[in-house]
Amino acid sequence: MNDRSNSRDTRDLVFAATLAAFAERGFHGASMRDIAKRAGVVSSNVYHYSQSKSDLLVELLKKANYDHLNAVEWALSAAGTAPAERLHTAVGAYVGYIVDHPLEALVAHSELRYLGEDDRKRLVVARDRLESIFENIVDEGVRTGAFTTPHGHGATRAVLTMCSGVAQWYRSDGPLTRDEIAAQYADYALGVVGAC
Amino acid sequence: MNDRSNSRDTRDLVFAATLAAFAERGFHGASMRDIAKRAGVVSSNVYHYSQSKSDLLVELLKKANYDHLNAVEWALSAAGTAPAERLHTAVGAYVGYIVDHPLEALVAHSELRYLGEDDRKRLVVARDRLESIFENIVDEGVRTGAFTTPHGHGATRAVLTMCSGVAQWYRSDGPLTRDEIAAQYADYALGVVGAC
Repeated sequence: MNDRSNSRDTRDLVFAATLAAFAERGFHGASMRDIAKRAGVVSSNVYHYSQSKSDLLVELLKKANYDHLNAVEWALSAAGTAPAERLHTAVGAYVGYIVDHPLEALVAHSELRYLGEDDRKRLVVARDRLESIFENIVDEGVRTGAFTTPHGHGATRAVLTMCSGVAQWYRSDGPLTRDEIAAQYADYALGVVGAC
Repeated sequence: MNDRSNSRDTRDLVFAATLAAFAERGFHGASMRDIAKRAGVVSSNVYHYSQSKSDLLVELLKKANYDHLNAVEWALSAAGTAPAERLHTAVGAYVGYIVDHPLEALVAHSELRYLGEDDRKRLVVARDRLESIFENIVDEGVRTGAFTTPHGHGATRAVLTMCSGVAQWYRSDGPLTRDEIAAQYADYALGVVGAC
């Protein structure tokens, strides 16, 4: 029991150190030795959890994607059936996660391009599910006439791009609270799909 | 004359090589030697144009920012005075530039964060002018009631973030043409500011 909990702690330490290293120096700039040093463990300990830097990046982003998906699904579970309400709720939760996890979002945004095809495939399950939640809501809104955009697919992508971009400028000491930002982006999203 | 033109050619080669190196390997992953090799010149030639890798990145992004600004100003010079028309035109030109210059946009988007404060200051002139063009259009639209958003400043940032994000997914062999993407994003932007 103790052994397992220690091992989980070390894994969390290694993941946090990986995140910090990638956020600060980028995928190519960060080294396994640097990650081990930040985590306060020996390098062999890092290799115990992941065979390579790519593998660490994949595991890190996979966990972030599942957490992000979970935040949106959880919020939607309490929302009604109207597409506008569902999109507002989903965007609010999506942006809220980004504000709460700026480093994860930043690394996902900037470093994903360094992964090969096989590694990317390990990430797409949660990411595709997350995107399809938004696509389904927008499709339903377009079908029922609640949303007037003629480009449902493109509008969905524009909304997700706009929301993901919050990670690029958000500062915790900025003038807007987390919930204000989330609510504003939910409004912008309704505008993009023509729900106003 | 010949000397000067050769020197300009070499400068262009060095800039193109810098762009390719940063786009492929990131700021920390690219080396001055790698850049010189791609440009087909000796390293001392690269140092002739810039004293450091940071300096190269600054010069590269500064030129891209001025080109981007110019593309938007040029398009607006032929537009009317109605805020909706001006925003549509400005967003179309902004996105068109990104589609035409995917590598510049990608590097600006991902690598800017590696620059120190002083280097960033050298970039902000063109960038601030570009952002203020959009802010002025949105302010005018809000003032005249053409745009209904209660968050003019936030909406402007959301529009620019959404548009800059095109660089993250645009592929020249994708189903949409440059002009279709530009027009769709112009429509999305009008939705964000509540012009629909």
